[in-house]
Amino acid sequence: MRQDKVITIVGLGVVGGSYAIALSKKGYTVYGVNRSKEGLELALEAGAIKEGAHTPEKFFAKSDVIIIALYPNQIVDYLKKYGKYIKKGCLISDVAGIKSMFVDEINKNVPEGSEFLFCHPMAGREKKGFKYADDKVLQGANFLIIKTDNTTLDAIERMSIIAKEIGFGNIRITDAKTHDKVIAYTSQLPHAIAVSLINSDDENSETASFIGDSYRDLTRIANINEDLWSELFLGNKENLLASITAFQNQLAELKKAIEEDDDKTLKTLFIKSTARRIGLEKKNQK
Amino acid sequence: MRQDKVITIVGLGVVGGSYAIALSKKGYTVYGVNRSKEGLELALEAGAIKEGAHTPEKFFAKSDVIIIALYPNQIVDYLKKYGKYIKKGCLISDVAGIKSMFVDEINKNVPEGSEFLFCHPMAGREKKGFKYADDKVLQGANFLIIKTDNTTLDAIERMSIIAKEIGFGNIRITDAKTHDKVIAYTSQLPHAIAVSLINSDDENSETASFIGDSYRDLTRIANINEDLWSELFLGNKENLLASITAFQNQLAELKKAIEEDDDKTLKTLFIKSTARRIGLEKKNQK
Repeated sequence: MRQDKVITIVGLGVVGGSYAIALSKKGYTVYGVNRSKEGLELALEAGAIKEGAHTPEKFFAKSDVIIIALYPNQIVDYLKKYGKYIKKGCLISDVAGIKSMFVDEINKNVPEGSEFLFCHPMAGREKKGFKYADDKVLQGANFLIIKTDNTTLDAIERMSIIAKEIGFGNIRITDAKTHDKVIAYTSQLPHAIAVSLINSDDENSETASFIGDSYRDLTRIANINEDLWSELFLGNKENLLASITAFQNQLAELKKAIEEDDDKTLKTLFIKSTARRIGLEKKNQK
Repeated sequence: MRQDKVITIVGLGVVGGSYAIALSKKGYTVYGVNRSKEGLELALEAGAIKEGAHTPEKFFAKSDVIIIALYPNQIVDYLKKYGKYIKKGCLISDVAGIKSMFVDEINKNVPEGSEFLFCHPMAGREKKGFKYADDKVLQGANFLIIKTDNTTLDAIERMSIIAKEIGFGNIRITDAKTHDKVIAYTSQLPHAIAVSLINSDDENSETASFIGDSYRDLTRIANINEDLWSELFLGNKENLLASITAFQNQLAELKKAIEEDDDKTLKTLFIKSTARRIGLEKKNQK
């Protein structure tokens, strides 16, 4: 049964904005905090928030749930600055793509009587800003909850109700270390690859007439928010470097097979990748 | 004005089958040649062909156009074996993803009075066989025509009419050398990357719960037909190796920036990739 009715979203970008749209549609009272006036106006026009402001004091005082949808590096300071306005019993959460770097620091700064639950919605879009927010991106997406020594079952249950209501699919509970290790592989490495693929194009060739869906798919995320993703990459440096190295080794093995006209090894690699991709589809239908 | 009415498709796989479906819908008389009985039966049931057989003799004798949708390595032999049944004035074509390796050999074996036009439809699917054929994949896709010393304007015009009628978007005329160089980058390199990405997964981690659209997009083509793609890779070896090396260099640059906590270089790489991806969207709306 729903106990949380009033939710404040801090940061009405693509993810925060998509949450606001989905929550308002589901009947929650949603307040929005955003640095830019444009984002607030768009969110109001879209009916995604009931009211908006540049700072959160008055909303925090009456919110059951607060979702801080800012860049990872901004969350700790935000909590330090505005934590005192948060009411007792409030569930605070985030949407950041990496966790280990701030878990301890945040846990130290959670206001007495409220709880911070670390969450990572596996949904987003290449573009920035509320105008690209869309609750469709949440539908069926994976939702990760990161358990720390401070995490209560009550917080997990409250957040799970909300996540399910706004359309998320599978909810997975993990720890910060595992999260950051796997996310380096499933999210950051693909972005590193997409960027490197499109940047390796010979600018003299007229690539655009020669592309099919494979190139379109592999470069979609090369359109990337440089501020956010440089933070995510450097904030999860060791894991990402390990993932890049593992990928480089695989690619080197495939390259060697080509150099040596070794079609037996090529086929073995293709059969392996095909089996893994089919396995993934079975486990993760979106 | 359409002059070609009767078309034989050799090989009712994903691409040949999709052609057959689209051509029949547009009122062409389509005959199908296929090794397996199952493919012929499915194509007949789907109304994609008027009649089918395992060998092409009787169809070739009455076809205005023949499209050989076999693996690249099979085309020359097929032409040598069955070329004598092709009627005068027939336009013969292919759908192969690489060209240089057989252009001369095919040009030497084209029956007197007919012409072979080398074509590469930039459309396909991961799966094999007629059951995955679908004319939707052709809609808006790029269509490449490869000009050789023997190519006539008449052949290009005849094929362009057909390509447009069955839904292809931009038609691009190029030469075999350019084609194979650019395709190594836009098609084969993405497949090499997707295979290496999914094969670099740590099998002990439960990746499936941790994925978003980026990982889904980048691994879709890791589900790959091993026989076809080992042929394509080895048949375009030098170009593909050069593309892989260029990509490896880009990825190494990005990795170095991460190692050195160099967020300035990271942002520069991201801004460059974003501009290129936006440029691509503008040039190539599908």
